[in-house]
Amino acid sequence: MTDRPQQDSANSMWGGRFAAGPDAIMEAINASIGFDRRLYAQDIRGSRAHAAMLAAQGIISTSDAEAIREGLLTVLSEIEAGNFPFRTELEDIHMNVEARLKEVIGEPAGRLHTGRSRNDQVATDFRLWVRDQCDAAIDALRALIRAALTQAEAGADWVMPGFTHLQTAQPVTWGHHMMAYVEMFGRDLSRFQDARKRMNESPLGAAALAGTGYPIDRHATAGALGFDAPMANSLDAVSDRDFALEFLSASSICAVHLSRLAEELVIWSSAQFRFVSMSDKWSTGSSIMPQKRNPDAAELIRAKIGRILGATVALFTVMKGLPLAYSKDMQEDKEQVFDAADSLMLALAAMTGMLSDLTANRDRMEAAASAGFSTATDLADWLVRELGLPFREAHHVTGSLVALAEKKGCDLPDLTLADMQGVHGEITDKVFGVLGVHNSVASRQSYGGTAPDQVRAQINRWKEKLA
Amino acid sequence: MTDRPQQDSANSMWGGRFAAGPDAIMEAINASIGFDRRLYAQDIRGSRAHAAMLAAQGIISTSDAEAIREGLLTVLSEIEAGNFPFRTELEDIHMNVEARLKEVIGEPAGRLHTGRSRNDQVATDFRLWVRDQCDAAIDALRALIRAALTQAEAGADWVMPGFTHLQTAQPVTWGHHMMAYVEMFGRDLSRFQDARKRMNESPLGAAALAGTGYPIDRHATAGALGFDAPMANSLDAVSDRDFALEFLSASSICAVHLSRLAEELVIWSSAQFRFVSMSDKWSTGSSIMPQKRNPDAAELIRAKIGRILGATVALFTVMKGLPLAYSKDMQEDKEQVFDAADSLMLALAAMTGMLSDLTANRDRMEAAASAGFSTATDLADWLVRELGLPFREAHHVTGSLVALAEKKGCDLPDLTLADMQGVHGEITDKVFGVLGVHNSVASRQSYGGTAPDQVRAQINRWKEKLA
Amino acid sequence: MTDRPQQDSANSMWGGRFAAGPDAIMEAINASIGFDRRLYAQDIRGSRAHAAMLAAQGIISTSDAEAIREGLLTVLSEIEAGNFPFRTELEDIHMNVEARLKEVIGEPAGRLHTGRSRNDQVATDFRLWVRDQCDAAIDALRALIRAALTQAEAGADWVMPGFTHLQTAQPVTWGHHMMAYVEMFGRDLSRFQDARKRMNESPLGAAALAGTGYPIDRHATAGALGFDAPMANSLDAVSDRDFALEFLSASSICAVHLSRLAEELVIWSSAQFRFVSMSDKWSTGSSIMPQKRNPDAAELIRAKIGRILGATVALFTVMKGLPLAYSKDMQEDKEQVFDAADSLMLALAAMTGMLSDLTANRDRMEAAASAGFSTATDLADWLVRELGLPFREAHHVTGSLVALAEKKGCDLPDLTLADMQGVHGEITDKVFGVLGVHNSVASRQSYGGTAPDQVRAQINRWKEKLA
Amino acid sequence: MTDRPQQDSANSMWGGRFAAGPDAIMEAINASIGFDRRLYAQDIRGSRAHAAMLAAQGIISTSDAEAIREGLLTVLSEIEAGNFPFRTELEDIHMNVEARLKEVIGEPAGRLHTGRSRNDQVATDFRLWVRDQCDAAIDALRALIRAALTQAEAGADWVMPGFTHLQTAQPVTWGHHMMAYVEMFGRDLSRFQDARKRMNESPLGAAALAGTGYPIDRHATAGALGFDAPMANSLDAVSDRDFALEFLSASSICAVHLSRLAEELVIWSSAQFRFVSMSDKWSTGSSIMPQKRNPDAAELIRAKIGRILGATVALFTVMKGLPLAYSKDMQEDKEQVFDAADSLMLALAAMTGMLSDLTANRDRMEAAASAGFSTATDLADWLVRELGLPFREAHHVTGSLVALAEKKGCDLPDLTLADMQGVHGEITDKVFGVLGVHNSVASRQSYGGTAPDQVRAQINRWKEKLA
Repeated sequence: MTDRPQQDSANSMWGGRFAAGPDAIMEAINASIGFDRRLYAQDIRGSRAHAAMLAAQGIISTSDAEAIREGLLTVLSEIEAGNFPFRTELEDIHMNVEARLKEVIGEPAGRLHTGRSRNDQVATDFRLWVRDQCDAAIDALRALIRAALTQAEAGADWVMPGFTHLQTAQPVTWGHHMMAYVEMFGRDLSRFQDARKRMNESPLGAAALAGTGYPIDRHATAGALGFDAPMANSLDAVSDRDFALEFLSASSICAVHLSRLAEELVIWSSAQFRFVSMSDKWSTGSSIMPQKRNPDAAELIRAKIGRILGATVALFTVMKGLPLAYSKDMQEDKEQVFDAADSLMLALAAMTGMLSDLTANRDRMEAAASAGFSTATDLADWLVRELGLPFREAHHVTGSLVALAEKKGCDLPDLTLADMQGVHGEITDKVFGVLGVHNSVASRQSYGGTAPDQVRAQINRWKEKLA
Repeated sequence: MTDRPQQDSANSMWGGRFAAGPDAIMEAINASIGFDRRLYAQDIRGSRAHAAMLAAQGIISTSDAEAIREGLLTVLSEIEAGNFPFRTELEDIHMNVEARLKEVIGEPAGRLHTGRSRNDQVATDFRLWVRDQCDAAIDALRALIRAALTQAEAGADWVMPGFTHLQTAQPVTWGHHMMAYVEMFGRDLSRFQDARKRMNESPLGAAALAGTGYPIDRHATAGALGFDAPMANSLDAVSDRDFALEFLSASSICAVHLSRLAEELVIWSSAQFRFVSMSDKWSTGSSIMPQKRNPDAAELIRAKIGRILGATVALFTVMKGLPLAYSKDMQEDKEQVFDAADSLMLALAAMTGMLSDLTANRDRMEAAASAGFSTATDLADWLVRELGLPFREAHHVTGSLVALAEKKGCDLPDLTLADMQGVHGEITDKVFGVLGVHNSVASRQSYGGTAPDQVRAQINRWKEKLA
Repeated sequence: MTDRPQQDSANSMWGGRFAAGPDAIMEAINASIGFDRRLYAQDIRGSRAHAAMLAAQGIISTSDAEAIREGLLTVLSEIEAGNFPFRTELEDIHMNVEARLKEVIGEPAGRLHTGRSRNDQVATDFRLWVRDQCDAAIDALRALIRAALTQAEAGADWVMPGFTHLQTAQPVTWGHHMMAYVEMFGRDLSRFQDARKRMNESPLGAAALAGTGYPIDRHATAGALGFDAPMANSLDAVSDRDFALEFLSASSICAVHLSRLAEELVIWSSAQFRFVSMSDKWSTGSSIMPQKRNPDAAELIRAKIGRILGATVALFTVMKGLPLAYSKDMQEDKEQVFDAADSLMLALAAMTGMLSDLTANRDRMEAAASAGFSTATDLADWLVRELGLPFREAHHVTGSLVALAEKKGCDLPDLTLADMQGVHGEITDKVFGVLGVHNSVASRQSYGGTAPDQVRAQINRWKEKLA
Repeated sequence: MTDRPQQDSANSMWGGRFAAGPDAIMEAINASIGFDRRLYAQDIRGSRAHAAMLAAQGIISTSDAEAIREGLLTVLSEIEAGNFPFRTELEDIHMNVEARLKEVIGEPAGRLHTGRSRNDQVATDFRLWVRDQCDAAIDALRALIRAALTQAEAGADWVMPGFTHLQTAQPVTWGHHMMAYVEMFGRDLSRFQDARKRMNESPLGAAALAGTGYPIDRHATAGALGFDAPMANSLDAVSDRDFALEFLSASSICAVHLSRLAEELVIWSSAQFRFVSMSDKWSTGSSIMPQKRNPDAAELIRAKIGRILGATVALFTVMKGLPLAYSKDMQEDKEQVFDAADSLMLALAAMTGMLSDLTANRDRMEAAASAGFSTATDLADWLVRELGLPFREAHHVTGSLVALAEKKGCDLPDLTLADMQGVHGEITDKVFGVLGVHNSVASRQSYGGTAPDQVRAQINRWKEKLA
């Protein structure tokens, strides 16, 4: 609540009633300048829009507005040049900027705060910041999708085991597997788009909580800041942080997707799998054990869901049961979102880089896919589809053929037609068209299936979508 | 992974290789029929669409399809009548329905599973169920918004304290406060709409994970089930549960909003506040302490964020780091979503009922708003706006006038013009136009402000929106 | 708060002031009998102790106490026989038991509630229940530790790769790996012991919140119920649920340990690793793919941390910011703890069974351990230790020898002494004593190291500890 | 895994195999020096103990050990003086210290790492750090308990409402309420004691994961570092972080307790309650609204449970499903624990200060306790206890007397004996001994009850305990 004069110097900030002044503990728990300085660009942007509007509405003079707007640019350049003297006793970024503005331009600085309050100011700054992060996540996801598409295109027909329960189930293609993540990241992207759209309303002008008697034009400041509209209820504007919760939730979902791919990369990098080889850029090695290459980046990406989910739980818990309007508890919103956003952007960048530099070991994957009679279901399906066998009988026949192959020490496609017909007389040589992993994947032509044609169709759809 | 024949009887279900059979612990940890039976309607709906498509594509005969579709209706009516014999040894709802279908219609039942797998089947069922919950949440939020609008309309100009830090800050109106929640619940509603749209793609036909070689028409089943399209990647279709995570996240955000209103209702019901009186329907009393009325429903609603957030964390944690495609871990998805959805719907219904039956104690609220010199900021603003005083001086003058009123034992509007002018000579009697809580709220005419006209404009906007 | 008469019939329960009565929603959100019936044994045990104390203190007659205590045994046997008529309109287990007691023994039933309240009653029941779960967890952990010890003893000298980053780092033994989990589960066990000790104080007699004017003897009831002492503050006794939070936290930590072992079992069961073979009891197979064995139980155990952590977060969030003493929010405590306890016990039992039936594939593990020059660090250490080479030079020499072995297509112990001395002339044939995985593990004789002797010493220590 | 030479310069750190080197993203995601520098004192302490042991065992020379130990003190003083040149390219605190040590003392620095690895080194450092935090929490809780005891002693007989559901239920005393928190904080303290004891075993000497072939003495280093014993399994020693999870869990429970007291302080500070007056040191005011005093510190303390629970969830999620031994994911452990520990210590200090400076408004509390017929239950109990009325009849009589008082506009103790006997003839004037809030609290003499004597007995017990 900012019903105290903003232009007071720090020493007298609390007025005569607070003779004691906050001591070290209180300063430590209360001051936010240590982290909310990250909002400086948004704060200055919001203040400049506010000043222009105040002048346009005749609430302050044009010359004051100009002085304020120019002065704020000076402050901005000082901060960006790294020579702005942040002061903890001024508590937060808003008061630091404002105090410095006063030093720079003098008296007109005092008029900037007309018709607004620290409550709507911080809500505006934070919303602008989170909106920027949505944009950043969208860009980062586009880059990641492109990296996955490149892998998918190269290996649209490279065969690998499709796992369930980490057991080989049916052959799929590397491209198909990569495209599964393209779909996931695509939905993540749309989640950030939806979140951005929903949060894109301006709290500015809600003032402390009730609106203001000054004839401000909230639509004007909303427009100047790229918001679609002003928020329609001033209490809501300063009280809610659901836009941050939604950003955190979307980030957590995205981080789950990243953790799954990262886990696969860790497993695929093991000596036992060796499906992929990591670039040196994204792993660390041993100077004496040449085959050891630790997938550090993948492990760290896998871990980020912990951090991001933790931040999400933190803010949900903080917001639980807070009466309207502003409570100081809400000061805890920023660090969680900052940390989650940083973690997400880093994880997205690292995954994009790692995927770009990744070598898929086509031969290892195909060999793994071919083991374990992975096309037994194709055989059973063929018996049902082509010979009209009931499901149960088809499975019985398949089981017998697998047993025969196992006995002969070969795989299903290596059986002869005579072998086959010895088990079921109606089998024709067309059966070989579905056996073998390449035949198997080629046969799965259902929409979204693993047949290379289907995979390529989806790659093309995505390339158009991103173009 | 459903590469085993579905039509086997329970006893021989695991084939000869599993002589031992799962014992009691394994059954306890493995069977899902205890909870996934709630998917019966979705399961049958999906199977009927699948059977119709199989016939249309010539994969099974029309008569088989008809037998299956009719038989499934019989099973449906048995379940709804409560006389379906659920069997734990059949593990899940899918096998229970299918086994019963076989008893009802015999051999054609075995053809239903052609071209699909339990993996895409369960993904389809669950997605349909969650989609239904989105619809239910949307309806429930509409009802809740209407209840809040009714309160807002009745009390658009009832004055109450606007709090920050639970300290009176500025007067607002009851209608304004109610409308803050209308905005929050409105965003919640749009979150469920977005989630519904994003999840509204069909996994059916993804089969075990790779698609199928049968010439199925996934667009047809998608259309029949009200999906916008089939999912474009079969691995993704059976592997991801982000739609459930998004539903849970949206539910958690909504539950935070509910917890805040519930907390206010608990505080407002205390003897010290008495801003509201709960209906007997939503509270419990003491037979011997007539003033004691425990706001049980509000407390239970407040608690639901715990439960829903817990379910959200549970599924995020389960999904962390799972390799594609299906892993059994994912069986843990349903109970969390069921519990969260039930909790949310119950909380929404209870809040709607409670709000509908709530009596706001207008006099108590107005008296509270009038205490504590709550229009001091209005006075200071007037001095700045009308007399052109610098902020700092305006605050000094206001402080002096408050001190004077405190000394005289009255509130600011009770001071005489002479009192005022004794502190600052330029004050005119127009100042009284902003003093007093009714004047204060009436003056806050900024868009979205607490002025009754502004509040009524927003009420009307929402009524049109809901119409 | 239980300041209403307990013996009223359901219809008139709310007294004249609640004419409307709770409707369906309120009943659904308010009634706890659906879940708190699980406390019946604890409830009856507590009531019997209370009745005995009341008589001993002369507050009720001995004959009344006897009637109550006998009647409660009747109710207990009815519930255990499954023919107790639970009634939702009686809300909770306490009122169900009490109402039935009245039917059974008539008027004396009304005296049971003297000097206590539902608040201390439910706190006592729940504490007894959680204490029982601590005991159950302790027993289950003992069984699990025994199963791990059996594995460890069998394979104290079986060599397997010791992984970091899922990359082979150094050879260890199967027994050593199993013993790592013994240590973890041992700490879990001690956490439940500590929690049990801390929670083992009796809330009974705290009454509604303030204690009572009846001359009750809280030490007597505490003793009769196996508590170490009565709780020392009546407000605390009915308000806090930290014992449940501590149980949930200990359960979550234990579930993390289980998830790690379960993850290893899933990875080790893959075709690529094949370090272990699951028993049929704990996995499911494919009727047509003989090598596929899905580690369902391991996956479900891995998932339980999600569920248990979710329950933990739920109760933490519920308890956040609740004013003293009892709030209805706290009714949400039980389902979370019930579900977490059930999940933990099931996971512990399944892991114990799975570990007991597990076959470790000694040859596969040893072969894996021998690949990748896993004893290169042993070689480097030997060069430092025996020849006094600086670390850097030792690494350089080792790197050259590894390169030589790689070129020759052999492992380090297969190099000849001449090969060795060609790289560094001072190497003697003693170097072979640390090369080869068996030599490597045998050499790690530091306390707690992987040398079989060390492993066996720890096995013996644990066997004595458990005896 | 630290199987690479530690003494290499930064540039050549990755050896020839990593020509590319880590780029900016990798450095950003991989380097920990930004946060793990907080472990410098523990790192140096551990290294000094290790060096001394190496010399004692004859593994390195005494002069080398002395050089190392002295050199480490130099490094320590550099860090503490703030002029240590931390280098990001050296990744972590361990390598920063070691590289600097080499600059300071030259060649002997290379021998420090003999018989240990970065894995056991970081486990040791972190465990020492967390152990220190347990000690800090124990001290801080002692101070907080003392502050609560001081409040309790001053107001052992000050009457205030005992709430359930935030409704007045029965009178209690301020001292009794304070002592409820003393009990809670006392259990928190014992949780940190238990956690400290359990974690107090030394990982040092576990080396990378398997132990070492050097004849190290792990008991010696354990003893030198104040550990009770070396950890008994080297894999466990470098793999587990349950000590951190337990610290976080205990911190979360403590933070829940703090949040409850903080919530009460916020509510009690409202104009409607005014049970307490905050010191200026812990609140912020309004220069123009003299009664407004925002309880900022209490709100921030209330919020800390969010942050600490978030950190807890984060680490649980990170650790879920990690195979043994070390994975890079575990690098995420420290920041969460650092942040949670900082938050907890700050919240404990702020609450201690706030409670020390708090003024309880005795009159306001007593007036509130006296309203609402808060001794109706005392009256009913008296009727049961003294006149032998059945519970139901006692409640009926009480209800009639309350109705009479309500009609007469007075409270229960203001009724005359004639009034009383008009409702039930056997009532005597002894009834007045339990009516009135002072009589009520005085009568609750059960152990742990709110009677001032009982409260004082508990205060004395705690004073002795802390002495």
